[in-house]
Amino acid sequence: MDPTSWLLLCRTVRFGDTDAAGVLHFHQLLRWCHEAYEESLERFGLEATTIFPSPTATPAIALPIVHCQATYRAPLVVGDPLAIRLEPRRLDPGGFEIRYHLQRGGGGTSPAVAEALTRHLAIETASRRRCGLPEPIQRWLEASAVGQGIQPL
Amino acid sequence: MDPTSWLLLCRTVRFGDTDAAGVLHFHQLLRWCHEAYEESLERFGLEATTIFPSPTATPAIALPIVHCQATYRAPLVVGDPLAIRLEPRRLDPGGFEIRYHLQRGGGGTSPAVAEALTRHLAIETASRRRCGLPEPIQRWLEASAVGQGIQPL
Amino acid sequence: MDPTSWLLLCRTVRFGDTDAAGVLHFHQLLRWCHEAYEESLERFGLEATTIFPSPTATPAIALPIVHCQATYRAPLVVGDPLAIRLEPRRLDPGGFEIRYHLQRGGGGTSPAVAEALTRHLAIETASRRRCGLPEPIQRWLEASAVGQGIQPL
Amino acid sequence: MDPTSWLLLCRTVRFGDTDAAGVLHFHQLLRWCHEAYEESLERFGLEATTIFPSPTATPAIALPIVHCQATYRAPLVVGDPLAIRLEPRRLDPGGFEIRYHLQRGGGGTSPAVAEALTRHLAIETASRRRCGLPEPIQRWLEASAVGQGIQPL
Repeated sequence: MDPTSWLLLCRTVRFGDTDAAGVLHFHQLLRWCHEAYEESLERFGLEATTIFPSPTATPAIALPIVHCQATYRAPLVVGDPLAIRLEPRRLDPGGFEIRYHLQRGGGGTSPAVAEALTRHLAIETASRRRCGLPEPIQRWLEASAVGQGIQPL
Repeated sequence: MDPTSWLLLCRTVRFGDTDAAGVLHFHQLLRWCHEAYEESLERFGLEATTIFPSPTATPAIALPIVHCQATYRAPLVVGDPLAIRLEPRRLDPGGFEIRYHLQRGGGGTSPAVAEALTRHLAIETASRRRCGLPEPIQRWLEASAVGQGIQPL
Repeated sequence: MDPTSWLLLCRTVRFGDTDAAGVLHFHQLLRWCHEAYEESLERFGLEATTIFPSPTATPAIALPIVHCQATYRAPLVVGDPLAIRLEPRRLDPGGFEIRYHLQRGGGGTSPAVAEALTRHLAIETASRRRCGLPEPIQRWLEASAVGQGIQPL
Repeated sequence: MDPTSWLLLCRTVRFGDTDAAGVLHFHQLLRWCHEAYEESLERFGLEATTIFPSPTATPAIALPIVHCQATYRAPLVVGDPLAIRLEPRRLDPGGFEIRYHLQRGGGGTSPAVAEALTRHLAIETASRRRCGLPEPIQRWLEASAVGQGIQPL
């Protein structure tokens, strides 16, 4: 399976994402990033309820975000089509980060309009103590690394 | 205790609540209403974690919203100060609704800018079966009714 | 063109749409509905910036929402795939409404999990006075009516 | 006027801010920060519509966010009272940043639960070219610096 198939996602700027300045309201970008991460796991073949809690299933390991950041390079307006390229990377046995590269249009040579990053830590849901990454996330990280060249620990 | 003290809440329209038309983006109003409901319970003296779930405490009874609606009478712009008056009402032993009346400025004789409604049903968290309202919510409903005149069941 | 192609849209419940009760937080549904309406116009062939304002183009006619409502029939959890069927209807020369029917899975005979409605009024952007619907919206309403049988004014 | 009066703001975690893990959903923190920034300007005496656009008034200078980040140190649950301390700082004649320090409870010696940062650039609204900070923002930055000791350019 080609890694780009689950690491390159599309989305369109919607009216509710904008503010009275007419452009994207900044923090909505981080919502898009998390949704792109969820879509990536889904396309890779992981069921959402095995990673994220729901009333009937609480995974033993949670992956809270401990840091996020975003940089905005160009104004985005309603209807703008975006390509979001994910670059996941294991940081240590109990953590990983995802870099998000946003381009207008279909990606390729279009100019970068924004970048973002989320950093995730594995903790046991019950004790909230740090632990190793869950096995499905490890598989997703390893398979994603294939398409990105060397992934130093 | 004067019922108005927990049934009349204030909030200001923020930049992130608006969209590119320059005015309130419609569904943000329903977020405000839920936050006003939570603030009302808090002012009445109920701790949030006795009503809403958190990782360390899941109340035996949940109160999901089964219906909501909102009517918009005037455009709202960034910085507009609003008064939100809550009118809670028990519907039957296992349900209640809250009407929200929004006025610009301090309330009183200012024109109505919006109305909204949320309808809540009591269910046992474990079984998701209908049940009676939790006792603290009953007290809040009864005390709120005092300031509103007759509250037919 | 088959009307169903722009009136039946898909979306997945994302983690950020849920609250600590583990299920969809109510007002996120209305965000989905507006996004489905925008996607429907886009698939029909209308460019977003001809309907919604952006810094470089303010359409002469705005379509603010004057009323919305939603009814919730079943809890929705992270990862749930949804089909959203839109039923737009002209109300009078200057207004229309959209009914949204949400089903789990691919639609068809799956049980209804929620319904919603948004009601829109045409106003001149400059004067905020009521006016007739913009021509592209009229075309979308008429073409949508074809697949829905009789559409009484 | 004591700078702390407009640089120390309060807020409570609301149910809609949480996700199915029972704790704050990460990007909501950045919404709080922007709302705290707006509240700070308001308390300092600046009217929202002189800084942020609205249908009847577009300020000549816009202040888009070009970078943001957040670090999460502890889980936050519904009902948690927070103190948000703002530390604004001019970066150069055309830009400033705000650091946000979040503590549980009333602040003081309570443990830090999160930090965040937003970086803002002044641009002429019409041309989107960089320009100097608007005068009211300069006054707010200077007055805020008084309570924070030396503010190197």
